[in-house]
Amino acid sequence: MTKSLSVLGATGSVGASTLKVIAHSPERYEVNALVAGRNVEALAKACRETNAKRAVIGDASKYDELKAALAGTGVEVSAGRAAVLEAAGQKVDLLVSAMVGAAGLEPTVEGIKAGSNIALANKETMVCAGTIVCGLTEKRGSKLLPMDSEHNAIFQVFEQDDPKAIDKVIVTASGGPFRKSTLDEMRVATPEMALKHPNWSMGQRITIDSASMVNKGLELIEAFHLFPITAEQLDVVVHPQSIVHGMVRYCDGSLLAHMSVPDMCGPIAHCLAWPTRKTAPVADLDLGMIGRLDFEKPDLERFPALSLARRVMEMGDGAGTVFNAADEVAVEAFLGRKIGFLQIPELLEDVLNRLHTQNMLDCSDQLEEILQLDQVARRVANEVIGKMAA
Amino acid sequence: MTKSLSVLGATGSVGASTLKVIAHSPERYEVNALVAGRNVEALAKACRETNAKRAVIGDASKYDELKAALAGTGVEVSAGRAAVLEAAGQKVDLLVSAMVGAAGLEPTVEGIKAGSNIALANKETMVCAGTIVCGLTEKRGSKLLPMDSEHNAIFQVFEQDDPKAIDKVIVTASGGPFRKSTLDEMRVATPEMALKHPNWSMGQRITIDSASMVNKGLELIEAFHLFPITAEQLDVVVHPQSIVHGMVRYCDGSLLAHMSVPDMCGPIAHCLAWPTRKTAPVADLDLGMIGRLDFEKPDLERFPALSLARRVMEMGDGAGTVFNAADEVAVEAFLGRKIGFLQIPELLEDVLNRLHTQNMLDCSDQLEEILQLDQVARRVANEVIGKMAA
Repeated sequence: MTKSLSVLGATGSVGASTLKVIAHSPERYEVNALVAGRNVEALAKACRETNAKRAVIGDASKYDELKAALAGTGVEVSAGRAAVLEAAGQKVDLLVSAMVGAAGLEPTVEGIKAGSNIALANKETMVCAGTIVCGLTEKRGSKLLPMDSEHNAIFQVFEQDDPKAIDKVIVTASGGPFRKSTLDEMRVATPEMALKHPNWSMGQRITIDSASMVNKGLELIEAFHLFPITAEQLDVVVHPQSIVHGMVRYCDGSLLAHMSVPDMCGPIAHCLAWPTRKTAPVADLDLGMIGRLDFEKPDLERFPALSLARRVMEMGDGAGTVFNAADEVAVEAFLGRKIGFLQIPELLEDVLNRLHTQNMLDCSDQLEEILQLDQVARRVANEVIGKMAA
Repeated sequence: MTKSLSVLGATGSVGASTLKVIAHSPERYEVNALVAGRNVEALAKACRETNAKRAVIGDASKYDELKAALAGTGVEVSAGRAAVLEAAGQKVDLLVSAMVGAAGLEPTVEGIKAGSNIALANKETMVCAGTIVCGLTEKRGSKLLPMDSEHNAIFQVFEQDDPKAIDKVIVTASGGPFRKSTLDEMRVATPEMALKHPNWSMGQRITIDSASMVNKGLELIEAFHLFPITAEQLDVVVHPQSIVHGMVRYCDGSLLAHMSVPDMCGPIAHCLAWPTRKTAPVADLDLGMIGRLDFEKPDLERFPALSLARRVMEMGDGAGTVFNAADEVAVEAFLGRKIGFLQIPELLEDVLNRLHTQNMLDCSDQLEEILQLDQVARRVANEVIGKMAA
């Protein structure tokens, strides 16, 4: 009983962990397509190792290079955005959606349309188009399995049968490198400082987003769509050890928590094996050895992105799209030393306010509108950065 | 949709909490019988408050007193051991088995025979007769709901569908009042010191058993019977705050934990509402407020009852009966200042060894043999105490 898989974002951080989980039990999986953006070498290597049928590279100019790298393997090679969408739309048992950013939205939707189950690590799918995507999965009978560590944790302890019994859904946050910093220290923080995540090894944007807690804001919005709950039922608790990843508190006082060592292979293995569980290349958690778990309330003054995310939830998919797009631009500007660390959330709020004033946030249920709004938000964000820098 | 209930041990610590849960939502429950041992006043009060149909007092000499206390209420009154067994054998939706000690075994079995589901707080049922009782519940189609906080916690995060996915079942222990004491300090510990439990307010025997960790040993044996696991899969971790009550670790590295404020109303409410969840008179858990959870490996040198319990599991129901009976005698002797605190586990080991040498531990599947062995163990324990004191 092998399971057919395709992986979008196969050479990224989550993609690499997915390949590790596959390599742990290769007999369980049959790899259809591995899709990457630009990294020819890593993609070719992954295709050889997993016996993938197809290799797809998003950057069309890399076609020849990829073709050469896979010469003689029999792996089918294609390139360009259309090829990515086509590969994503081939029905498999499970499509791992692990591309970074809004670029992951369309291919994920293609997978849902094909009726594939989706292991979702691409936050933007839910943040920008949660309403559209949830409607579509229901229509196509596709199942969304959350693969972010927090949402996967919540999924594991969320009793689907009785949503009325849910009291709170609690997302944990490591607090990032600035958990104990003052506002003044955060104001002059450099990219190097912000890139030092205490527990997780992740991509650059998500690491900066962890430092600013924009990531946690995106996760709140994502959780809001993934689970049948209200915005008021969502809570964040800072937990520096990143051992508890998510929790659900029930109306009878029970709080069910998911814990593990911080390793993306855990949630990935859970999604790949679901609805059963299989052994995974993850170290065992031994609380007696770890000794201590700490929890604290988040500081909304130093991390305004959390409050902003709550506003975004109330405002809908359009606001989610703008929040996310403006943040991608903001993080790039911060990494390029064009804006300061605390200007990231300032920028998000500014762009949201501008587009809200212009009545630009009310999207229809068309993916095209969402993608247009994404572009508008990026343009406005860049304009604002230009003024900030001036 | 009311649920019919009877409560064995209605005036004890767990019984009182059960009545509190019932009082929180009286419209949900119809109380058939409340059963108590000796406390006429509390039993009569509870019957009035819950509109119980029957009041049963185990001590036959208290019949007139109970009759007088319930005069004019219409509550049916009976007394004596036979009346207890009869009441336990009346079919209800849920029989709460909360009598203390081996005396709770027979009435619980009566309830199972009647086909009632059982909310089990009486450890001895599983410790002394786990094999018999589990066979019987299967035959009668009765469901056992663990009501001890630890087992109820494990039950809530134990995925029944796929026992092969279970890696470890972890019971937490507060560590009791002697968690940080030296062996020398424990040797001269008084009943007053041992009765100071840091987190739970419970009956005397269970509090002493917590201090010696005999209670944790009994819980290991109980868990061994309640869940489809091996003895090697069971672990204990000391967790002084008593917030995490039980955990299950899966083969994919996921550890699911149940947390709540330490309040017996939680697991009781869970059992009463099962398979749904209903609001309960339990304070909400706020980890941000609590701040910190600690975990440490148990010290098997200071708490030898844990290792002894593992031996008992390997030896079977007869050994469980002796372990439990000898402990009841030992705790009484300790409270009466006849033996020292560290002599409790010594006594258990001594009695077990004596009866093992005499080939007395191999019981058949007859409840009568178990009850006879219980008596023998008590007699032997008293003999050994006589020699210790001499």
